[in-house]
Amino acid sequence: MFTPPFNRIIEELPASTPFVGPETLERRSGTPFALRLGANESPFGMSPAAQSAMEASLSVISWYGDPEAYPLRSKLAALHHLSMEQVAIGSGIDEILGWIVRIFVQPGEPVVASLGGYPTFQYHVHSFGARLELVPYRPDFSNDLPGLLQAVEVTGAHLLYLANPDNPTGTHLTPEALESFIQSLPADCMLILDEAYIDFVHPTQRLPMIHFHPQVIRLRTFSKVYGMAGARVGYALALPEIVHAFDKIRNHFGVNRPALAGALAALKDTEFVRGVRRENAIGRVDYEQMAQTHGIQTIPSHTNFVSFNLNSKDRAQALLHNLMKLGVFVRAPGGAPPLDQLLRITVGTPEQRQLLKPLFAQAIQTLSNF
Amino acid sequence: MFTPPFNRIIEELPASTPFVGPETLERRSGTPFALRLGANESPFGMSPAAQSAMEASLSVISWYGDPEAYPLRSKLAALHHLSMEQVAIGSGIDEILGWIVRIFVQPGEPVVASLGGYPTFQYHVHSFGARLELVPYRPDFSNDLPGLLQAVEVTGAHLLYLANPDNPTGTHLTPEALESFIQSLPADCMLILDEAYIDFVHPTQRLPMIHFHPQVIRLRTFSKVYGMAGARVGYALALPEIVHAFDKIRNHFGVNRPALAGALAALKDTEFVRGVRRENAIGRVDYEQMAQTHGIQTIPSHTNFVSFNLNSKDRAQALLHNLMKLGVFVRAPGGAPPLDQLLRITVGTPEQRQLLKPLFAQAIQTLSNF
Repeated sequence: MFTPPFNRIIEELPASTPFVGPETLERRSGTPFALRLGANESPFGMSPAAQSAMEASLSVISWYGDPEAYPLRSKLAALHHLSMEQVAIGSGIDEILGWIVRIFVQPGEPVVASLGGYPTFQYHVHSFGARLELVPYRPDFSNDLPGLLQAVEVTGAHLLYLANPDNPTGTHLTPEALESFIQSLPADCMLILDEAYIDFVHPTQRLPMIHFHPQVIRLRTFSKVYGMAGARVGYALALPEIVHAFDKIRNHFGVNRPALAGALAALKDTEFVRGVRRENAIGRVDYEQMAQTHGIQTIPSHTNFVSFNLNSKDRAQALLHNLMKLGVFVRAPGGAPPLDQLLRITVGTPEQRQLLKPLFAQAIQTLSNF
Repeated sequence: MFTPPFNRIIEELPASTPFVGPETLERRSGTPFALRLGANESPFGMSPAAQSAMEASLSVISWYGDPEAYPLRSKLAALHHLSMEQVAIGSGIDEILGWIVRIFVQPGEPVVASLGGYPTFQYHVHSFGARLELVPYRPDFSNDLPGLLQAVEVTGAHLLYLANPDNPTGTHLTPEALESFIQSLPADCMLILDEAYIDFVHPTQRLPMIHFHPQVIRLRTFSKVYGMAGARVGYALALPEIVHAFDKIRNHFGVNRPALAGALAALKDTEFVRGVRRENAIGRVDYEQMAQTHGIQTIPSHTNFVSFNLNSKDRAQALLHNLMKLGVFVRAPGGAPPLDQLLRITVGTPEQRQLLKPLFAQAIQTLSNF
């Protein structure tokens, strides 16, 4: 029997997948979901301008994309008042998270994150043989900033991950709180600030770019407000030295050509983005009211999803199970307290929310005996 | 002055890019290329069925792609008489090459390849801190199989890279030669068999899948005959254990959703592929005749490009320079003998070839004084 000569890291690495995709769940159950509200994919689709740009780009699909993503990086730099050398494009934030772990961490070294935070980041840390130091969320479901800082100081970690707004809770730190947190970082620790959901936050409540801090790598995506998750485009805003380091390791021709064209067009359609933000805010209120009807609390959300607090892991998992059986794809983080009490539902269109309400009522019914 | 806490590998890694993209060259010169024949992109585009599938998929671009790429892997498994567990999908062969280096090699370890072979593979080896043992091509521009084997034996390398058909020479090994080579591999060495151009080879001249060998990872792509380089879809055929190891490290949601749909549709349009192969063969003969007219030798090609032998590095580089100045994007590998004598031109459409001929004649004129 032949054994492939895997290296030590791979041999010792347990099998893990950051997320089981909805298609896999559908194949397992044999039934397609009636409502796909589990991956925070935008139900409002993408800008018609982006759609046209992607369609037009199909006529030159036989050409590799521009490995420098020059037009998109120029536009993003102008938008954020940075230089092009501070912008890196990847196949979604997920790919960029892998680059960051790879350039800063060596096998065995510590990396700090919140317990129950974004699984894909934690997946990358493990897969490069590094060690996670996980800090529980606070009882109010916010990231424990003093706890995270302490973990960095105690372990000497060079890397700290924080999502703002947070996933899966939907909480948000004010610019002031964030600024003060950044100022407290030890000088040899980089902060990965995952801002996948920042476009849902009012501009005055975002950390300004003028406060560009060399220790912070800010990550943005076209997967959420822009409705282009399937296109795979995300970007990092960071020191030129860091963008330069990405260039030493990244798959230079890796981003899909129509996706680059679509992202550029999407940036220009600011009216579309405003519309999505408006619709999303209405949907969030709708979900909060739905929760209230059933006596369930929600965490005030700054994202395109709402986390419902079921007050116990058993109830959260039971509701997850019931909804999935009714054909509603949602997520419940499970794992450790306090996040294990939560069930996360992506904001849907008005039609999807109408469909959801009776199903949610039905799914919640059998929970009374918990 | 803040210095990011890069790890040792990144700090010591010199900046390098496997290829400078044609868009970058256009930006430098300020003039778009009249003929883009330098990256072996198919000038025959993609199948209309694939185009329709990609367009249709744009309607659900807000959904992440299926991380298991189930329909595409099923179809590929059936096509190659393998199990689905032997098929891995990535954002082009380039991404998969990175995975392979990552799972088999540790920093400092040797990897064997041909001197002047595919730059992106060599880029990945360097970027993971491994060491390349490069074996020169033979004077007839074929890969030096005994030399490669000897390098593996001497260094104890666990990884050996071979492209068949070869890039940038266009040479091809018979199934018999390849089979015998594989049988001679040390038991702890994996062979990466890069078959990006295999679709241009007559099926009877390909290494049959029935000879599936556990030590071989075969790589295929939708970037060449299928005309979908901008879509970024490639795949590996390998032992289930190896596909499973990829699953431990890869970016699970990394492949573009329309690209997955397009690749599946492209596989079904066998008539289109036959047409491209036929047109490409005609174009190769055309290039050979063009070379003969100017007294230049060509290497018999089994791919969608032809390598012209200019007999000296100076002449090859001068011709490259002249063609680029005339707006023709081509490549000349440069580097070490014997490949430094070559200039590589992608087979164009009949119209592109008509445009090329006078420009080639013009570019070759000033070479007489070499």
